[in-house]
Amino acid sequence: MKADARCLICTANQALRVLNKHIRSEEEKWIRLQDMMKVISGFKWGLKPIEMGEILYSEIEKIIGKRDIYEKEKRRSNEIALSILDKIEKAVRDSADPLYDASKLAIAGNLIDLGAPSWDEERVYNKILEILEKPFGINDYETFKKELSNATSVLFIVDNSGEIVFDRLFIEMIKEYNPSVQIFVAAKSKPIINDATVQEAEEIMNGIATVIDSGMTIPGTIVEKSSEIFRELFFESDIVVSKGQGNFEGLNEEENEKLYFLLTIKCPVVADFLRLPEGTMVFMKNTKKR
Amino acid sequence: MKADARCLICTANQALRVLNKHIRSEEEKWIRLQDMMKVISGFKWGLKPIEMGEILYSEIEKIIGKRDIYEKEKRRSNEIALSILDKIEKAVRDSADPLYDASKLAIAGNLIDLGAPSWDEERVYNKILEILEKPFGINDYETFKKELSNATSVLFIVDNSGEIVFDRLFIEMIKEYNPSVQIFVAAKSKPIINDATVQEAEEIMNGIATVIDSGMTIPGTIVEKSSEIFRELFFESDIVVSKGQGNFEGLNEEENEKLYFLLTIKCPVVADFLRLPEGTMVFMKNTKKR
Repeated sequence: MKADARCLICTANQALRVLNKHIRSEEEKWIRLQDMMKVISGFKWGLKPIEMGEILYSEIEKIIGKRDIYEKEKRRSNEIALSILDKIEKAVRDSADPLYDASKLAIAGNLIDLGAPSWDEERVYNKILEILEKPFGINDYETFKKELSNATSVLFIVDNSGEIVFDRLFIEMIKEYNPSVQIFVAAKSKPIINDATVQEAEEIMNGIATVIDSGMTIPGTIVEKSSEIFRELFFESDIVVSKGQGNFEGLNEEENEKLYFLLTIKCPVVADFLRLPEGTMVFMKNTKKR
Repeated sequence: MKADARCLICTANQALRVLNKHIRSEEEKWIRLQDMMKVISGFKWGLKPIEMGEILYSEIEKIIGKRDIYEKEKRRSNEIALSILDKIEKAVRDSADPLYDASKLAIAGNLIDLGAPSWDEERVYNKILEILEKPFGINDYETFKKELSNATSVLFIVDNSGEIVFDRLFIEMIKEYNPSVQIFVAAKSKPIINDATVQEAEEIMNGIATVIDSGMTIPGTIVEKSSEIFRELFFESDIVVSKGQGNFEGLNEEENEKLYFLLTIKCPVVADFLRLPEGTMVFMKNTKKR
């Protein structure tokens, strides 16, 4: 998915959010944001938003001299999500279709920026209960379920911290639905924004799935830039689950009919692209065939 | 009032809004917005937001080759406001304190971007009725009323089109409250965003006040850059009424205790400055004395 002019401003906004966290002087913030705007002014037409993110965050890291700028928020996200999962897991497992409910929870988890300081646990919990009542805007769940029955392998591409905790329950439900399926979880090589890294995925997925390094250092996944093991699993697995907007932006032009996009629409550019309102939950089979 | 880093992004957003109206090609929008970001990257720390607006809009005018880019919207704003005034004027005039109600209507008129295509007349009307129920966040109305009793001259600095129609009723109520007062209305020299121009003010204020040219070509008022007649009236009038955020941003550091700021807080930067939430209506006497 190609970025448009709105993504230029969104990228500048992301820069300011990071600068606000790390710089106190208003004058320095002003100057640094202008430096970032100069970088953004040089972005070539045709880039994907996640490629813009890669360039921006590598520049920001230089300024603030820090590699993992959302480290604290990511940890907090996982803690909050684990605590919420404690409360909600039984209801999902006991529901009429645990696989469906778990998929919805995993997609809802994508909506909430769990690391945002204004989100306390109770608010996140209530928000999730509210979201779970909403239907999917695109719903290919039944096709997914049918294909899962005959699958022997699933590649699950995770997105953010926090959300990844709910992904674990969804993966457990996938395994309960089809115990013969082997599951690989692909995560980022190194920290980028609040995306889950390989290290984090290994902690969370411990014992339920094999974690692989996608080779990605951008806030999404682009096949041509990915690791060999990722490419192999991407093309050979019976089902590929892509979580979140960043992975959607990078993979939506792939010709791979085994691919499912599970995301919450978080920005007007993706909303226009999918012709659905922001906030919509999507469980969508890729339509581009080989 | 000095701009901060948020104003850099707001200025880029304003640029994109204009580009969206005048350019169809997504690639050209991308390139032109990047041009604007380069200009914004050169803004000196210490500028007022309205000074940034002046530079930006003069660059945008070059790109789109048009002088009065909000001409249509301004006309539509005035038409909608006149039609709403028809419905609401009697209630204001018959109220317990028509001067107070008219001031509130004039401030509420500032909140609504009457030119926005999504605002039809009925929606604007309902929104205004809703706003009129809210109290002022800062309320120096009683002091204003007392000072008005003894005043012989008032300088009234108008802000946007649409809003200016409600200003007229407020000015009429000022004259009914103190028939011996002489009223001067200051408006912009030439079109800038949706600010009311001298020409427009003359049409709307016809017969009820003397219109003067403030000398301003920026979306606000800065005394050092204003016309001689404006400066004379600004310092010699018994009361000065400054409408809207743009005029507030330019005048809030003036040492003039006859000055009142009537505005609706429309952005987080002014909200932080006044320590009040966005959307708050303000009727505030200037605290800086000579």
